[in-house]
Amino acid sequence: MAELDKVLAQLDANLPQALDRLMEFLRIPSVSTDPAHKGDVRQAAVWLCDQLQELGFDASIRDTEGHPMIVAHSAPGGSRPILFYGHYDVQPVDPLELWNTPPFEPRIEDTPDGQVIRARGASDDKGQLMTFVETFRAWRDVHGALPPGLVLLFEGEEESGSPSLRPFLHENAEELKASIAMICDTSMYADGRPAITTQLRGLVGEEITLRAADRDLHSGSFGGLAANPIQVLVNALSSIKDADGRVTLPGFYDGVEDLTNELRADWEDLRFDAAEFLSRVGLGQPIGERGRTALEMVWNRPTFEINGITGGYTGDGFKTVLPGEARAKVSFRLTGTQNPERIRDAFRAHIESHVPADCSVSFASHGASPASRMDISDPAFAAAKAALGAEWGREAAYIGAGGSIPIAGDFKEILGMDSMLIGFAKDDDRIHSPNEKYNVESFSKGMHSWARILDALS
Amino acid sequence: MAELDKVLAQLDANLPQALDRLMEFLRIPSVSTDPAHKGDVRQAAVWLCDQLQELGFDASIRDTEGHPMIVAHSAPGGSRPILFYGHYDVQPVDPLELWNTPPFEPRIEDTPDGQVIRARGASDDKGQLMTFVETFRAWRDVHGALPPGLVLLFEGEEESGSPSLRPFLHENAEELKASIAMICDTSMYADGRPAITTQLRGLVGEEITLRAADRDLHSGSFGGLAANPIQVLVNALSSIKDADGRVTLPGFYDGVEDLTNELRADWEDLRFDAAEFLSRVGLGQPIGERGRTALEMVWNRPTFEINGITGGYTGDGFKTVLPGEARAKVSFRLTGTQNPERIRDAFRAHIESHVPADCSVSFASHGASPASRMDISDPAFAAAKAALGAEWGREAAYIGAGGSIPIAGDFKEILGMDSMLIGFAKDDDRIHSPNEKYNVESFSKGMHSWARILDALS
Repeated sequence: MAELDKVLAQLDANLPQALDRLMEFLRIPSVSTDPAHKGDVRQAAVWLCDQLQELGFDASIRDTEGHPMIVAHSAPGGSRPILFYGHYDVQPVDPLELWNTPPFEPRIEDTPDGQVIRARGASDDKGQLMTFVETFRAWRDVHGALPPGLVLLFEGEEESGSPSLRPFLHENAEELKASIAMICDTSMYADGRPAITTQLRGLVGEEITLRAADRDLHSGSFGGLAANPIQVLVNALSSIKDADGRVTLPGFYDGVEDLTNELRADWEDLRFDAAEFLSRVGLGQPIGERGRTALEMVWNRPTFEINGITGGYTGDGFKTVLPGEARAKVSFRLTGTQNPERIRDAFRAHIESHVPADCSVSFASHGASPASRMDISDPAFAAAKAALGAEWGREAAYIGAGGSIPIAGDFKEILGMDSMLIGFAKDDDRIHSPNEKYNVESFSKGMHSWARILDALS
Repeated sequence: MAELDKVLAQLDANLPQALDRLMEFLRIPSVSTDPAHKGDVRQAAVWLCDQLQELGFDASIRDTEGHPMIVAHSAPGGSRPILFYGHYDVQPVDPLELWNTPPFEPRIEDTPDGQVIRARGASDDKGQLMTFVETFRAWRDVHGALPPGLVLLFEGEEESGSPSLRPFLHENAEELKASIAMICDTSMYADGRPAITTQLRGLVGEEITLRAADRDLHSGSFGGLAANPIQVLVNALSSIKDADGRVTLPGFYDGVEDLTNELRADWEDLRFDAAEFLSRVGLGQPIGERGRTALEMVWNRPTFEINGITGGYTGDGFKTVLPGEARAKVSFRLTGTQNPERIRDAFRAHIESHVPADCSVSFASHGASPASRMDISDPAFAAAKAALGAEWGREAAYIGAGGSIPIAGDFKEILGMDSMLIGFAKDDDRIHSPNEKYNVESFSKGMHSWARILDALS
């Protein structure tokens, strides 16, 4: 029996105990956003750190201004150091009354889709994080030692916006540097196909406040004479995209790159059914940039969206008011090497060009992050792809993500390394919602997958 | 001494008593919107009806589903029957803490602008209404009888949107018909120049709800692919006016009439200072339709305004949401013979032409009233203008109003008669606000004005 097969067999043999340990972890209500759960968050950190120490890691709890980090190392050496990242905090449980069972009393349930673990954090991210830990345990049991060259970084503030993460990465950059990071906080592609996310869109968030009169005016007395800030705002916002769905800001597409033939083929092979995808939310057809496939639209093309707008009277009934102010929140999703600050500047210049002399505009920045694209020529990607394919019986896909996963950008920027985003969550896991679950199959085959990837990279 | 001079002298002689009666009237807190004041509203009606009966009117309280109407008649006859309209209800007083003296404890105050009557309702409309009543009293004292052919209609729901008024006019149309209506609920032109409002803009109010996805979407997962109802809404709304401030809806300007030379000369003579007017609200320059004077913009040109807009996330911070719905409230001000329903139809067709297949739109109507333009060739207008000029020592102006005064439209539509809108309120009377006042000069010269008008028309 090859060493890998022994690890897989050990994982199978110890699945009941691994599930027991996960249940123990899930019973700790480590809600990071709620100050009342501060002690619980620390308890989860202590529990996890104890597990790692017991496995032979040099593991420690590192205090921050918020919740603690856990950092652990196996013995130095090995062909390439690898960082594993996950988080042990969980989302709040509100509204509690929509849970069918108490969120911190985990249980295994039989469902038409097989057994699932039902609890807050089962999928996001305790269950996924434990696929790492249990794989290391089985590896140690079979090999007599942990794989060398591992660095583990588990945080307790991911659901609170990770305020301590970037300072921590800066302060501990030497200790945390590795050849690549494994991040277990993502989903499989639709229908359970294993996937590696190799590109993420960036984001520029902006808030605009347009002011005209110093009070609300009566539209009978002033309508047709005085500046209406809502009209100014809608005029400025409507001209940012043209009829083909393209953004009209000068220089906006600088740095946007077309798909490589390899990725184009991979994505076509996914046979993404945009109409089916949209039908789940009551829509029916892609409405974005003309001449692009649906997956390109969300993964490889930049876009502009108005996320919120408000001005004037919006309550019941009617008021013939000319408001003094109107506001909007907007965001751009970025791809390739688009420069967030240049795009912010172009946006502000565009808005300002629409503001008449009687109005003023102010802006607030809500973040700026460039897009991330992993270097899939690193042999680790091909190795991981093959390992996932062997485990799941289906070729793994390189996919994109339309959103940002800030940690991947932080690792790139601060630690200078790419990330491999592999997760086994499913679209119906209800993360952040009542009745969160994680399929036992995701847990079991997830552990197998990491064992295969570790084996391929060692 | 001519009869008119005797009436004017009688008014002057009885000014102290007239003020006492007004103070008594102002002490009754007849707040029509507040059910707790229902009894007070009735008490005000009883007080007023008693006054009219004592003067010799055939006056009665007419119950409605809301607060009562008062209808009063003098003896039939005279050269032309005239209807006088006013209201005895008042606005709420909140915020009470901003009043320097209790709102229902009226007092005479000395100010740099002369003596004023300080109380809720002093200007709007008890003080103005009493200029009618006290004029009739002096007339009776001098002539021995009331002027014949008067119909008085005083309502108690004006500040509550007059829900009973139109049904009451329909049910009592024969009794209320006259040759013209006098409405005492308006202001003088700026700087105390007497004025007769001869045209009012109409109004079409609309509410639009644009729906896309059946829930809020994450802009990372859907941005660039799924319809954004805010974007659809701003695109549709921004194209309603062109760069010259003209409305682009087909047929919109049908029925809009240019100013007559007479009115154009009158309005130019007003020397309206748009920059000064706008500076009072923190603005500086007219921003409306190109090629029109400022007074034309607000009095004689139709316009389109967005009165409210909302969609997506508008709280603190930022959410990268693609909302499921966006809403706006808009209105058109109408002039000439523009047809409100045709304009509503054109607006809805315009919006619908912007709605993609994945979205739906629904509309709610918030009223439709045509513009009013009085027939100033009726000799009553020239007579009233001359009477006002004689009293105030300044030529009275024919002016417009940018807003609607629904009662004038109702009299035209239901009773078939024009209205003469003459009032002596001043811009700084703080109607609807704390510390409302009415200048004693407005009261005194207002009574004189009505005496002169009655004399000229009798």
